[in-house]
Amino acid sequence: ARLKMPLATARAVTTTAPTTAARARTARRMTTATRAASLSAYLPADTYHSLPKDGDVTFLHTMVRASNLEATMAFFSALGLVETRRKESQNGKFTLVFMASCQGAPEIEITYNWPDEATGETETFAPPSRSMGHLAFAVDDIYAKCEALEKAGIVINRPPRDGRMAFVISPDGISVELLQKGDALEPREPWKSMANIGSW
Amino acid sequence: ARLKMPLATARAVTTTAPTTAARARTARRMTTATRAASLSAYLPADTYHSLPKDGDVTFLHTMVRASNLEATMAFFSALGLVETRRKESQNGKFTLVFMASCQGAPEIEITYNWPDEATGETETFAPPSRSMGHLAFAVDDIYAKCEALEKAGIVINRPPRDGRMAFVISPDGISVELLQKGDALEPREPWKSMANIGSW
Repeated sequence: ARLKMPLATARAVTTTAPTTAARARTARRMTTATRAASLSAYLPADTYHSLPKDGDVTFLHTMVRASNLEATMAFFSALGLVETRRKESQNGKFTLVFMASCQGAPEIEITYNWPDEATGETETFAPPSRSMGHLAFAVDDIYAKCEALEKAGIVINRPPRDGRMAFVISPDGISVELLQKGDALEPREPWKSMANIGSW
Repeated sequence: ARLKMPLATARAVTTTAPTTAARARTARRMTTATRAASLSAYLPADTYHSLPKDGDVTFLHTMVRASNLEATMAFFSALGLVETRRKESQNGKFTLVFMASCQGAPEIEITYNWPDEATGETETFAPPSRSMGHLAFAVDDIYAKCEALEKAGIVINRPPRDGRMAFVISPDGISVELLQKGDALEPREPWKSMANIGSW
């Protein structure tokens, strides 16, 4: 009983279609039930339910590879993401760690290939080419977030001089854009006059 | 009045905290209002509201660059994404097209830098390096989706032999994973015995 139309449309149908009062009540109950199920199961990692409005395609994750799993997890943790699930493959000799703002939100899948058993060498990669731009997250308070990132030892490559936008890069060179939710904050020191560092 | 905790937790608090009946009613009303606002504004593109459960960080988009905007849009359209918004910059000489499963869902931001005015040459890129893996989408019916992609002239690099997983690549070499929602479908021809093509 997945609802295939936007919620607003579904509601309009519920209230305007020529049904009996009883059928209307049932329809309302179904809409409420669907809404509750969708919210609590918003992009759930293992079952791939959609929000009603997603249609037949649901965005799940962006996969990035890490040469150092702990460093990459520390970076995304400082950003505010949490580990939502993890898979270790003895056969494939890799670990997948999924991180998101919360359980059920769109995820970053971090692939970590285990060091070579013979040489102990870890896989290394070139940073992303220009075909891959960045991952973007909206944050409640871009100054507070950048301060937290700095405290975690992360360089703010593009400081939020405008109270609106910042860029940082992961240990493997993956660019992350931070955007202030809603209106830009009032420009404020030390950010206001802080120079760019490197590229992102 | 953004709710900072997962909905399930908020509900538990609403029903177990020692409040008066009136306060409990108000809390229930607020929860319902927040839930409705969040659903209709699920990851809205321009205002960056969160779902209640997202906390202070909300995933917005993954940005990819396109050497040919039409070809890239045709690829993501065949996948089932729609254009949600667009920005043209005369000064920056670029077009940004955002695509998602529906308005308000997590987006792909496609950056298209306009051809050089003097030479008419379009920017080209190396395909993504190994540090960037893929984008992943869950689909209602992986066979129907792969058939639609083939009809649109897209090569199925990793056919869904197992009724569960497929890979395709964008015109600029960006890898896209498709995953069957819920349980895997019954393995079925022609997919069952179809060989891999290229790498992804």
